[in-house]
Amino acid sequence: MTKYRIAIVGFGVVGRGIGSILHDKREFLKSRYDFDFDVVGISDLIWGTVYDPGGIDLGKALDLVSKKEKLDPLGKVLPDSLAMIRETDYDILLEITPTNMETGDPGYSHIKEALKRGKHVATTNKGPIALYYRELSELAVQNNAELRFEGTVLSGTPVINMALKDLAGCEFSEIRGILNGTTNFILTEMEKGKSYEEALKEAQRLGYAEAKPDADVEGWDAMAKIIIMANVVMGGDISRDDVPRTGITGLTIEDVENARKAGKKWKLVGRAWREGGKVKAEVAPMEVDPDDFLYHVQGVLNAVVFSTDIIGDVTVVGRGAGSKEAGYALLTDMLDIHRKLKGR
Amino acid sequence: MTKYRIAIVGFGVVGRGIGSILHDKREFLKSRYDFDFDVVGISDLIWGTVYDPGGIDLGKALDLVSKKEKLDPLGKVLPDSLAMIRETDYDILLEITPTNMETGDPGYSHIKEALKRGKHVATTNKGPIALYYRELSELAVQNNAELRFEGTVLSGTPVINMALKDLAGCEFSEIRGILNGTTNFILTEMEKGKSYEEALKEAQRLGYAEAKPDADVEGWDAMAKIIIMANVVMGGDISRDDVPRTGITGLTIEDVENARKAGKKWKLVGRAWREGGKVKAEVAPMEVDPDDFLYHVQGVLNAVVFSTDIIGDVTVVGRGAGSKEAGYALLTDMLDIHRKLKGR
Repeated sequence: MTKYRIAIVGFGVVGRGIGSILHDKREFLKSRYDFDFDVVGISDLIWGTVYDPGGIDLGKALDLVSKKEKLDPLGKVLPDSLAMIRETDYDILLEITPTNMETGDPGYSHIKEALKRGKHVATTNKGPIALYYRELSELAVQNNAELRFEGTVLSGTPVINMALKDLAGCEFSEIRGILNGTTNFILTEMEKGKSYEEALKEAQRLGYAEAKPDADVEGWDAMAKIIIMANVVMGGDISRDDVPRTGITGLTIEDVENARKAGKKWKLVGRAWREGGKVKAEVAPMEVDPDDFLYHVQGVLNAVVFSTDIIGDVTVVGRGAGSKEAGYALLTDMLDIHRKLKGR
Repeated sequence: MTKYRIAIVGFGVVGRGIGSILHDKREFLKSRYDFDFDVVGISDLIWGTVYDPGGIDLGKALDLVSKKEKLDPLGKVLPDSLAMIRETDYDILLEITPTNMETGDPGYSHIKEALKRGKHVATTNKGPIALYYRELSELAVQNNAELRFEGTVLSGTPVINMALKDLAGCEFSEIRGILNGTTNFILTEMEKGKSYEEALKEAQRLGYAEAKPDADVEGWDAMAKIIIMANVVMGGDISRDDVPRTGITGLTIEDVENARKAGKKWKLVGRAWREGGKVKAEVAPMEVDPDDFLYHVQGVLNAVVFSTDIIGDVTVVGRGAGSKEAGYALLTDMLDIHRKLKGR
């Protein structure tokens, strides 16, 4: 039995998602996968930074935060996340801070510091992977550490691991998908007759869209995801400025209605493909017809279509967001690291 | 660089599929995955059994068989498959003989003999895995050998590896899918107005259905696949006689038309689920509506929906048959074994 010491940075919605999965599944993970763990550190800008080498009581941590109380009673209080990452003992860092597509920070710095120390990292943070994948993956190799990020694209729905492992040996001519649930929900609502503004409001009311919805509706989120797919899965070398990006804010109810009359639907599609020996990518609303599987992916569901050279198209459909859904991606990443370290 | 000695039993459509993939991708597999190989043995009831420890020229083997000539010039001629499996040196056996759902043989004997010698096995043969999974997987563990069978369900479209690895940590309440392309093609043709007999003839003309189509249309093929999913992925202990099985031969054009009028479609569905602490399974035509992803899976395409406890439903859609498609499953299995042996 291997017992991993886990440090969590970012104890927001997703952090609590993986926290509660680990809390609920401890015995199952032990008996089924020989995977045992202590969460030795938790750091959050709001709830504080605590460390206990003997293991923090996850139930208590979840309980405190649900009551909007700080984590201080649960361990030694440290000044901040970097102090925990640099100075404490742990095996795996779960980096779950918010995505920043300008600088990648604070996730970028967190991941670098952990990898430099030879600590394994699993992250759901799109910024560092979209902006600095090559640097970070080289740093991981140099320090004999593992870097995993299934949750950066479609949360726990398998996409990255599937492409790199299950579809190993295939070459991809194109990867395209509905990579953002919020915009897909808005477009689905517009098909029912709502205006863009009404549909956005409904998405905000249901918690699918933020008060400031730009990251979703302007296509930034989908862009980060298609960059990750292009660079990690297709071997591209794409940066932010290489990707033409159009969101859905320009789509009117007339556009949606005209598409319907033509038997089509508008979808916000992220697409990466090979052209002239290079990998290219774009994000834009596209009209799709019923022969295209993306046509049938409605509401907050996401989907990715891999076009392969050997077995044709492989499509994966699943939820692309949510506390448990994104939290689970960190579990699948840890179990993958565990399989590798123990030779399965 | 690891160089594997591969022995192939069964050089029919699928055997030649993996043969040509290995032939075409040798350099790519070496440079991308450090995976190098010699095919040291090929055995086929029609084309004979040859062995060459220095490696058989795959191009010549494919060429000979395309001219309907025996493989004898390519190596030492052996009496039969068992002689090759028992007496020659190889690392991985690719078992690609036809499925037999009565006895599992000859695949069952081939796999047992190889595992007993500590040889790794990858197979597309449903019979041995559907009938003898527990025995064979225990034999593999005892002999420190690997047993892989991604191609037994949906050919190379990732299903088994996805469930066991990418979705590790999840528990499955239900797995259901369109597991047979021939019957789905026939049903799709019937939606266009063809009778069952006309649709079957069309499937036979296109090579999707055999002259004796029972394995497909009576649901035996789908049954083998759902047994494999139930036992391997859900931890069930189901045998052939536990699975109620209805094929599509009883479906009339009126049934299909009545479903259409109700906004539905008939699909041949394989389903495994938990009930009273046990895993159960069935194969039967079911009416599905457009909210069900299976509704949109048309023609020879297959699909599986995994209902998980953590991330909801995950759906995979892809081709379920074909020379390259099934052949590729053996490549993904070998690359998975390779990752494990080298610690990735």
